[in-house]
Amino acid sequence: MAVEELFRSEGRAADQARTLKMTPNFVQTAEGSVLIEVGHTRVLCNASIEPTVPGWMRNSGKGWVTAEYSMLPRATLTRTPRESERGKIGGRTHEIQRLIGRSLRSVMDLKALGERSIVLDCDVIQADGGTRTAAITGAATALAIALNKLVSAGTLKASPMREMVAATSVGIVDGRVLLDLAYEEDARAEVDMNVVMTASGGFVETQATAEREPYSRAQLDEMLRVSEAGIQQLLKAQQECLQRAV
Amino acid sequence: MAVEELFRSEGRAADQARTLKMTPNFVQTAEGSVLIEVGHTRVLCNASIEPTVPGWMRNSGKGWVTAEYSMLPRATLTRTPRESERGKIGGRTHEIQRLIGRSLRSVMDLKALGERSIVLDCDVIQADGGTRTAAITGAATALAIALNKLVSAGTLKASPMREMVAATSVGIVDGRVLLDLAYEEDARAEVDMNVVMTASGGFVETQATAEREPYSRAQLDEMLRVSEAGIQQLLKAQQECLQRAV
Amino acid sequence: MAVEELFRSEGRAADQARTLKMTPNFVQTAEGSVLIEVGHTRVLCNASIEPTVPGWMRNSGKGWVTAEYSMLPRATLTRTPRESERGKIGGRTHEIQRLIGRSLRSVMDLKALGERSIVLDCDVIQADGGTRTAAITGAATALAIALNKLVSAGTLKASPMREMVAATSVGIVDGRVLLDLAYEEDARAEVDMNVVMTASGGFVETQATAEREPYSRAQLDEMLRVSEAGIQQLLKAQQECLQRAV
Amino acid sequence: MAVEELFRSEGRAADQARTLKMTPNFVQTAEGSVLIEVGHTRVLCNASIEPTVPGWMRNSGKGWVTAEYSMLPRATLTRTPRESERGKIGGRTHEIQRLIGRSLRSVMDLKALGERSIVLDCDVIQADGGTRTAAITGAATALAIALNKLVSAGTLKASPMREMVAATSVGIVDGRVLLDLAYEEDARAEVDMNVVMTASGGFVETQATAEREPYSRAQLDEMLRVSEAGIQQLLKAQQECLQRAV
Amino acid sequence: MAVEELFRSEGRAADQARTLKMTPNFVQTAEGSVLIEVGHTRVLCNASIEPTVPGWMRNSGKGWVTAEYSMLPRATLTRTPRESERGKIGGRTHEIQRLIGRSLRSVMDLKALGERSIVLDCDVIQADGGTRTAAITGAATALAIALNKLVSAGTLKASPMREMVAATSVGIVDGRVLLDLAYEEDARAEVDMNVVMTASGGFVETQATAEREPYSRAQLDEMLRVSEAGIQQLLKAQQECLQRAV
Amino acid sequence: MAVEELFRSEGRAADQARTLKMTPNFVQTAEGSVLIEVGHTRVLCNASIEPTVPGWMRNSGKGWVTAEYSMLPRATLTRTPRESERGKIGGRTHEIQRLIGRSLRSVMDLKALGERSIVLDCDVIQADGGTRTAAITGAATALAIALNKLVSAGTLKASPMREMVAATSVGIVDGRVLLDLAYEEDARAEVDMNVVMTASGGFVETQATAEREPYSRAQLDEMLRVSEAGIQQLLKAQQECLQRAV
Repeated sequence: MAVEELFRSEGRAADQARTLKMTPNFVQTAEGSVLIEVGHTRVLCNASIEPTVPGWMRNSGKGWVTAEYSMLPRATLTRTPRESERGKIGGRTHEIQRLIGRSLRSVMDLKALGERSIVLDCDVIQADGGTRTAAITGAATALAIALNKLVSAGTLKASPMREMVAATSVGIVDGRVLLDLAYEEDARAEVDMNVVMTASGGFVETQATAEREPYSRAQLDEMLRVSEAGIQQLLKAQQECLQRAV
Repeated sequence: MAVEELFRSEGRAADQARTLKMTPNFVQTAEGSVLIEVGHTRVLCNASIEPTVPGWMRNSGKGWVTAEYSMLPRATLTRTPRESERGKIGGRTHEIQRLIGRSLRSVMDLKALGERSIVLDCDVIQADGGTRTAAITGAATALAIALNKLVSAGTLKASPMREMVAATSVGIVDGRVLLDLAYEEDARAEVDMNVVMTASGGFVETQATAEREPYSRAQLDEMLRVSEAGIQQLLKAQQECLQRAV
Repeated sequence: MAVEELFRSEGRAADQARTLKMTPNFVQTAEGSVLIEVGHTRVLCNASIEPTVPGWMRNSGKGWVTAEYSMLPRATLTRTPRESERGKIGGRTHEIQRLIGRSLRSVMDLKALGERSIVLDCDVIQADGGTRTAAITGAATALAIALNKLVSAGTLKASPMREMVAATSVGIVDGRVLLDLAYEEDARAEVDMNVVMTASGGFVETQATAEREPYSRAQLDEMLRVSEAGIQQLLKAQQECLQRAV
Repeated sequence: MAVEELFRSEGRAADQARTLKMTPNFVQTAEGSVLIEVGHTRVLCNASIEPTVPGWMRNSGKGWVTAEYSMLPRATLTRTPRESERGKIGGRTHEIQRLIGRSLRSVMDLKALGERSIVLDCDVIQADGGTRTAAITGAATALAIALNKLVSAGTLKASPMREMVAATSVGIVDGRVLLDLAYEEDARAEVDMNVVMTASGGFVETQATAEREPYSRAQLDEMLRVSEAGIQQLLKAQQECLQRAV
Repeated sequence: MAVEELFRSEGRAADQARTLKMTPNFVQTAEGSVLIEVGHTRVLCNASIEPTVPGWMRNSGKGWVTAEYSMLPRATLTRTPRESERGKIGGRTHEIQRLIGRSLRSVMDLKALGERSIVLDCDVIQADGGTRTAAITGAATALAIALNKLVSAGTLKASPMREMVAATSVGIVDGRVLLDLAYEEDARAEVDMNVVMTASGGFVETQATAEREPYSRAQLDEMLRVSEAGIQQLLKAQQECLQRAV
Repeated sequence: MAVEELFRSEGRAADQARTLKMTPNFVQTAEGSVLIEVGHTRVLCNASIEPTVPGWMRNSGKGWVTAEYSMLPRATLTRTPRESERGKIGGRTHEIQRLIGRSLRSVMDLKALGERSIVLDCDVIQADGGTRTAAITGAATALAIALNKLVSAGTLKASPMREMVAATSVGIVDGRVLLDLAYEEDARAEVDMNVVMTASGGFVETQATAEREPYSRAQLDEMLRVSEAGIQQLLKAQQECLQRAV
């Protein structure tokens, strides 16, 4: 069918990522805002700076960074009911927003941030696989934009973000290691892996899940190698986006 | 402050609407999709066709059209918590999505639609006043696009939408009747009115609410007059958007 | 059937309201209490004065008036499940209680009230159409009773209620404008309108909804004219009830 | 204070119940309806006959009788928030509605009822102690009225209610056994007991709870004796109400 | 079937309780911990001392004791869905945890406890009837252990628990009064009774419920007699457990 | 403090796991039951076989395996409120039960299972770190026991579990790679990793999370090496437990 065709990753090499586009300041209401597009996947990432921290952190002298993730009902080819309608947040959403929050905090100096919270809202406008890794890459950029504004305004002397962080997915489909899975590939994958990495090359999160059958150590090594290369491109695109944001 | 300035409706005449832009097919995943921008207000309206009707309508031979409305947390200048996080939908949201649904059904021949449901998801990307009326205008267009596709595909012989419908807001600020209130104006308004009208000039909904003090019959008449003119422009823009959608 | 007969508005002229009865002090536990009966519709309206205001109003020096609306499960001919059982309040309920609250606040001097809240509980004992407008008329009276007690007790020097407010419904059934619709008429109406008006003749809310097909400007004018006359009677009955309350 | 005075049980003998009044057919919408007044306590009991049984009873050939209990927010001297607002039903409510349901089922021949459900809605209009026992006494009467109608209509050959059932409270206050506690007495009671009994003198439920300190066997015997006498009066009043209901 | 056999109370006399075993300090994380086994029924009772009281008790100078009760999903022969999954606590659970809390508070000097809360978590590992009475007996012991630790640590001068309290069930099965019903007996019982009693012989709660048909006064007396004897054994076992706990 | 001492892993080598104990048939009510103890961590794992599959799998000819995870409130040194009380399941719980379910399904032939569901309830009795990996190891064993019973009963010809699966944690504390972290170590860890592995040596899940600072590829390799050795011991213990279960 035409629609399926549209979302199939065509002509890409196994280790080739999809076309990437990052638009800074997509909304004017947020302190930091980035629309990230990875192929057909589009995620709007907005950073909100709030003057308080959660109750359990009060008087710790430290700040907090957290994330919320949601899909618009029609981000997918068939409509997904809203979590607000069902009255509760599903397990998948919880898992993803915890991953985004951990990834961002790993590059933050929370003491230097001071007692403020930053919430990163990651809303998926259109979903074609890799929404959680796109959200991390976009949210890190929106976070950097918001922090740079605090520095420009003189509120902070230097950005408390030690370095940038980005993420990609990699998987094994029909026995082949493929970078940056589109939805149709992801649905067929034997193994699905997310890799979150910092600009200086350290790992923040590596999570490889066998969806159908176990994977070997050699396959794990190959997935790590391919994803590292993919993340270099994302880190470069983030820098360009940050410059355009000013 | 700069940010407030940005959202103030400057230089507009009292009966002049804000700049309007409608982008058809904003997402490729939905049967009908329109991004409507009314000044700084931006609402994404997606139509989903579903093969069943709610339980209480089964075997009635009739279809159903309903709407859901939501704001992204950072559509506003200060972040609004998600309704999915709070576990329930607020009164304002309920009121708005019922208004959108009623407005769309008023121009539908539900019998001709047959036993299918169409859900219109109206997600506010950025809010600067008039989100509910923008949602009605955008959703009506997304609905028309989706129905036209059913006709093109031969599923329906003719569109079961009898005519188009559009909506605008009008209000009384400092004693003056103003068309299409921006947020800053709406917050100061004594009276706030929403008018929903069909292409043939019939009213679907007129709702005028005194926020501070009661209004006279003469003021009501003036608000009705001004809003009718505003809706003519919206109906024209809908037609252009429908042509670009093909 | 006998039961349906019972609730049909018989012999009434098009612009004639149903029999009205208001019983002050129906319960002895509340600061203000009125049982309002409009034909077969019966709503118990109780006012509760509370010494605090919602968090977002604290230290504003102003008071707050709000309303809650609910139907007993067997107020209707077929039983309606309780909202407490379903764990959430429906959209219709939200819409109604927001309307009641807005209507009452429009005639209140919230500054003169001081930092207190008044909650108006409107519980429908029996429903035969027009419950929301009966609730406004009854709740305004219960509110006045409660405030008069504060004045009698010397807590307030004068009642912070600037004037009375009352409401009625009007609609178009089979092309005819009818005042004060009973349930059976409301179910068949093409257009349904609620009008909320103050003693001095100002409008607080006018909301006309096309349930089946759009209405013309001439029809809107006629509905406004008929409802104004109906509200005069309600305002008179409120005064009598207030006198009996002492 | 005047209000407190109002609710104090004055001049009553220790084994004397409060004034009792039962109004049949209080609402016209329900199959069975009784307003029961026990002193200042007023509970509206409505019976609804529904054509189905809960899923777990389907195809059992038996019917079901259940109850729901709720207090209007201003049934009490200080306002109690609605359970629908809090989104869940409290433990006290659960306990009471289970007790009412069990009491009614104990005198029903569920097989003779056939596969139908009867829901007894017990809504407290004004609360001055003893609401759960008043609810049982009133609900049993509303149930009998509804079943008699099924017999009159020829739907059932005979009422599947084997006998009547009624309930009262008894307690120990300052060491004295008192029948039918008003709120102010209940609040001070050392022991609080509910007794549910059938017309033929069998116990359906006896529940004695030490609120402050344990009670002896002799005290339990005395409470049983006093409550039996009180229940005889209730059973007589039920019969009179049933006759007036026709 | 073998499984049913397993849980049938064999060879027991009518007034003979099941084998009882109480293991103190079953977990090392809680201030007081007892695993109570009554036949196949096993309940883990843990006491937690918390430094604050609920909001409505603050500054009263008194402490609070409360209980929570839950069944592991597979405590029963067929799996019972978790209440956390369903998002709300059922009526049976509410009823039981209120009973446990009341029973424990009846032997506490809450003033002597001071402004602290003690929560008793009663989690049913395996259910074969009598879980609520086992929970009371076990929780009272866990509570005593926790309080003794506060005395040992010098935080309190003496235990604020005035005496021990224990509970058992008794019922009428096929017309015979039986002590300590196992599940299979309970399911067939005509009458089910719970008796909660203190070491000094006072009643805290006696609740006898007719599940099928009413019971006579003579049957009530017999049930009280049999249960008193059963409770003596429980009180003795509690003392032994307290000694082993040190 | 004494309590902290108790839970500190003393004398263990960096690559040495804690004492392991697995008790089969801990409850008699479930088809498969294992109490797993890893040091002070104790998790009760019960398998329930149900005759149906979730709606979205019906008529697929395949079975389903899922898991639920919960902590008793007093499994931890300070009490954790129940998720049933809060009315919703937290993100951590969701994340864990999804991990357990995926791990078990990876070694199942769901087609050979046929249209049945198996739910693995993992309830933490006492928590001292590593509860999710203990739950996987214990649940896999309970699952094997339940399936072996289906084979013994002749319901299935062979167990649809292709091989066993077990899990352990590993982490980096003060720069050193440590196997099987206890709570106190986990709280201080820079990196925390969970490894799920099958008997034949394939990975099902490897998830390494930087809690404080990023980790290098060399550290990841070392963590993988150490955890593989630890899992061999777990697989051996599972076999012994399965033999004792018969």
